[in-house]
Amino acid sequence: MSEILIVGTVAIDTIETPFGKAERCLGGSATYASFAASFFSMPAVISIIGNDFPKEHVELLKKRGINFDGVQVSGKTFHWEGFYEFDMNEAKTRKTELNSLAGFKAEVPDSLRNSRYIFLANIDPEQQLEVLKQLNKPEFVVMDTMNFWISSKKDAVTEVIKKADVLVFNDGEARMLFGTASLVKAANDALKLGLKAVIIKKGEHGALLFTKGKHFSAPGYPLENIKDPTGCGDCFGGGFIGYLAKTKDFSEKNFRKAIVYGSVIASHNAEDFGLNRLKTLKMEDIEKRYNEMKEIREF
Amino acid sequence: MSEILIVGTVAIDTIETPFGKAERCLGGSATYASFAASFFSMPAVISIIGNDFPKEHVELLKKRGINFDGVQVSGKTFHWEGFYEFDMNEAKTRKTELNSLAGFKAEVPDSLRNSRYIFLANIDPEQQLEVLKQLNKPEFVVMDTMNFWISSKKDAVTEVIKKADVLVFNDGEARMLFGTASLVKAANDALKLGLKAVIIKKGEHGALLFTKGKHFSAPGYPLENIKDPTGCGDCFGGGFIGYLAKTKDFSEKNFRKAIVYGSVIASHNAEDFGLNRLKTLKMEDIEKRYNEMKEIREF
Repeated sequence: MSEILIVGTVAIDTIETPFGKAERCLGGSATYASFAASFFSMPAVISIIGNDFPKEHVELLKKRGINFDGVQVSGKTFHWEGFYEFDMNEAKTRKTELNSLAGFKAEVPDSLRNSRYIFLANIDPEQQLEVLKQLNKPEFVVMDTMNFWISSKKDAVTEVIKKADVLVFNDGEARMLFGTASLVKAANDALKLGLKAVIIKKGEHGALLFTKGKHFSAPGYPLENIKDPTGCGDCFGGGFIGYLAKTKDFSEKNFRKAIVYGSVIASHNAEDFGLNRLKTLKMEDIEKRYNEMKEIREF
Repeated sequence: MSEILIVGTVAIDTIETPFGKAERCLGGSATYASFAASFFSMPAVISIIGNDFPKEHVELLKKRGINFDGVQVSGKTFHWEGFYEFDMNEAKTRKTELNSLAGFKAEVPDSLRNSRYIFLANIDPEQQLEVLKQLNKPEFVVMDTMNFWISSKKDAVTEVIKKADVLVFNDGEARMLFGTASLVKAANDALKLGLKAVIIKKGEHGALLFTKGKHFSAPGYPLENIKDPTGCGDCFGGGFIGYLAKTKDFSEKNFRKAIVYGSVIASHNAEDFGLNRLKTLKMEDIEKRYNEMKEIREF
């Protein structure tokens, strides 16, 4: 049994950045998150793909040890086409073909219902709730979301937050969900909903952790070349839950380490298109950059 | 003799933020920078004020120990009127009345020409050069600038950079001056001009230090309430040079500490309008927050 369960999208992406273009490559929030988590602990994925989904992608993930029992197959695969402009901080969407994702109803196979560590990656909050309903007392739930769901299904997002232990979102989403310019206020408002911790991802500026009465600021890794930021947020979340599942330590102190590991994997991910960098990434690369992260914040 | 010399503006500001308004309060880059530096080492100011400049402002600064021998008096004081919108990251100008600043030619009195540590705060780069010309071999020169000078007098800004040891500017200015989205590339380009260090201020996201082959990332202090960010960048620069002048240690390691002290003073400054917070700030408040800064980046 996989201890980590990740619900999210498995997609085919077409991405253009100022540094190149990738046509119909492997993508999706559950793909990036599960690959990142797999550096620490093997996850299972709940998602849907189409009959057109290339076999080599499934093989890549299965070979890695990622459990695909909860991935349904129907119709055509979800396809996202987007681009980044000069500053690369925000993905702009050219085209979204939901395809089989439109009719997706998450189903957790019996074999996965005792999963202990859950990552609700970016997907419709109603599917996140669906997954939670089907689980037998998960120990620790981390959730991600995005501006699209905050504006279209705010109530459902709030309901998920109330059932989660940790909320991971970016600074723009934090400001949007809580209607304040202050990230500190937004985080405090989120904590009032019953969360143990709130993590605010700030891209190149690092990440912030808010828990009751405590604060942690993780530096951003100084990347000279960013080729494609797609999936960095998902890698962050996957790396975070992966490290926690491996260490089984849910203290604030260990959250800090998990955040830095998540950031390190995300920073590697941005160095190439799609999953290209992660495919060759080794644990020793991760440890090396983790130690660099210690050095760059020392004073 | 003051060891630190600061050239910049002394101004009357009218500021509006979502949290209130301050009419005709004391402001200016040299004012904020010298006040911040004075927590560590007493600076002298090179600037110009008008005959209308309120006596109590001069008294406030002189009482603090700031040397005003290099401040000329002529006509009316420079007046800036600006406002901040919801996100408070960028000052918007309503009105700029240059007044006596229009005819300002920096003059360093004989008694200050041996100053050792120089902060070229935000002012016309030609006046920054003027000051450098009049000095007898300063040991260490830190410069600040702003987008206005980068777009209107880029050559003069570059000339100052070539004569400085440390360049301090914000992320938008770094991207603008070096025509790149990557702060790492911008910093490396700046280092090629002969600087010992480049510091990129990122407001609430902290600050970055780039030296040859080394990198430091200072966290931002998590302020829940920001009333008025005017002068924060100047406080940062003033605190930075003040700490260096006090410790007389120009190693990369000490730059890191100086950056955190600069950030701490800047974060306090944002808590109230104008110089209101700095006026009552104590060294123990600074040390307390400096220690908190250590705690929030620990992992």
